[in-house]
Amino acid sequence: MTNIAICAPATPITRDHAAALEALVAAEFPAHRVSFHDQCFESAGHFAGSDLRRLEALLDCANDPAFDAVWFAKGGYGSNRIAEAAVAQMSQAARSKTYVGFSDCGYLLAALYRAGIGQSVHGSMPVSARSERGREAVRRVLRWLEGDVSGVEPSIDGTTPAAAFNLITLAMITNTPLMPDLSGHVVMVEEVSEHLYSIDRLFFHLANTLPRLAGLRLGAVTDVPENYVEFGQDEVAIARFWCDRAGIPYLGRAEIGHTSANRVVPFGLASPPTTA
Amino acid sequence: MTNIAICAPATPITRDHAAALEALVAAEFPAHRVSFHDQCFESAGHFAGSDLRRLEALLDCANDPAFDAVWFAKGGYGSNRIAEAAVAQMSQAARSKTYVGFSDCGYLLAALYRAGIGQSVHGSMPVSARSERGREAVRRVLRWLEGDVSGVEPSIDGTTPAAAFNLITLAMITNTPLMPDLSGHVVMVEEVSEHLYSIDRLFFHLANTLPRLAGLRLGAVTDVPENYVEFGQDEVAIARFWCDRAGIPYLGRAEIGHTSANRVVPFGLASPPTTA
Repeated sequence: MTNIAICAPATPITRDHAAALEALVAAEFPAHRVSFHDQCFESAGHFAGSDLRRLEALLDCANDPAFDAVWFAKGGYGSNRIAEAAVAQMSQAARSKTYVGFSDCGYLLAALYRAGIGQSVHGSMPVSARSERGREAVRRVLRWLEGDVSGVEPSIDGTTPAAAFNLITLAMITNTPLMPDLSGHVVMVEEVSEHLYSIDRLFFHLANTLPRLAGLRLGAVTDVPENYVEFGQDEVAIARFWCDRAGIPYLGRAEIGHTSANRVVPFGLASPPTTA
Repeated sequence: MTNIAICAPATPITRDHAAALEALVAAEFPAHRVSFHDQCFESAGHFAGSDLRRLEALLDCANDPAFDAVWFAKGGYGSNRIAEAAVAQMSQAARSKTYVGFSDCGYLLAALYRAGIGQSVHGSMPVSARSERGREAVRRVLRWLEGDVSGVEPSIDGTTPAAAFNLITLAMITNTPLMPDLSGHVVMVEEVSEHLYSIDRLFFHLANTLPRLAGLRLGAVTDVPENYVEFGQDEVAIARFWCDRAGIPYLGRAEIGHTSANRVVPFGLASPPTTA
């Protein structure tokens, strides 16, 4: 059995989201058990509770030896505000767990990966369980947790370490105490709801600050707002331009992003956890 | 006479903008002369011409000994793409000039300040000369260039070096080859058209990457889009929060920003240029 704790380090979900995931797990993944921390449904302004409340809930999940995995309920914005403190307060029990999420929760995946705590995994989140297409993305995570690698990003070859991030999230992490050493990694980036000039600007920052990578892959860039003028380059041309300038091999596309096609990317060279 | 060259390192202006500035200068600043580079009116996708064209125009202005100052016509986005090459190709003539602009043109102000080339000055730009309120901001720059300091940001005391940036621009500059040493400076930041969660995220990055500052001042934060939920802190609370976490003295507000109140901030400890 895989015992999965769910908390919300950034923004809240509703009880309907939780019920949808519970129904999916009961119907299709009887070997898994999901437990939603009450904090998932709380709110304080933009966030799923105050910084302290979100930190407590994350530590409740991470430091409890009864859980095998911690699944972040939703992104949004806010996990950066608690990531450094969370890692500092994690116990031995936290070190053998798998942590799954993406988008804003990339701050936590980064901090955990840097600290060598557990296994960081880019994957879809419980908030997606209410729609048919979202459930397919959620199933990839649940399958991976039971040892089925069919939902893993197809370019992952088991020999080059990988990591996956939202583009803004990675740009904000660079040179902070959350930044892991990504030297030699294939780094995959995706973005949503940003103008192309903003994508270009973020690549400028990354091209000038990332270490020597094995390469970069571009995930989905979705819901790009219309601007008053066409930018003049699409997202692939932008990624190629900055990779060329930085001497980073551009390796093509990756199947990650804010879409139902979002694949699982275990950080590093990880295999799925062994299920008991 | 102050001979001012105008080029557009980011996005273009129109002939109407140029005419409005020329009329203002003719009517009120007979000791100044403004010369618009033709490149100001060109466009290539988002930009005022290709990277190469914008770079050439900037070097035409900076490296011509006939000019005393280079004024950037407009921000938008794009000066980061040419800033490093521009600084590398500047001649001795570029070293005695004043460079004025703000917003996206902060990439150039930063790169010039880092390289010790000329005098970087945060100030309003020719694009603002078409409106009555914009002209008041433009006058502050023209007055400063003739030795009148009445438009300088009022907190500047002549003993602590200062610098002023758009918040995203500064966040993107950190740890790149454009980043000047801002240790011991009062750094002023302003932002426009960004959600409060984005402001918070940018402060997270800066709080974790800026060197030891003399302090931070918050300029105007304008045109904040409405979000689906109230953030829960205003821009002053956000700035205080991150300054407290980073050990940066929060010094209060600064009169800079995307408004007609935008004041002049000479980088470092500069006095106005001596007019001949």
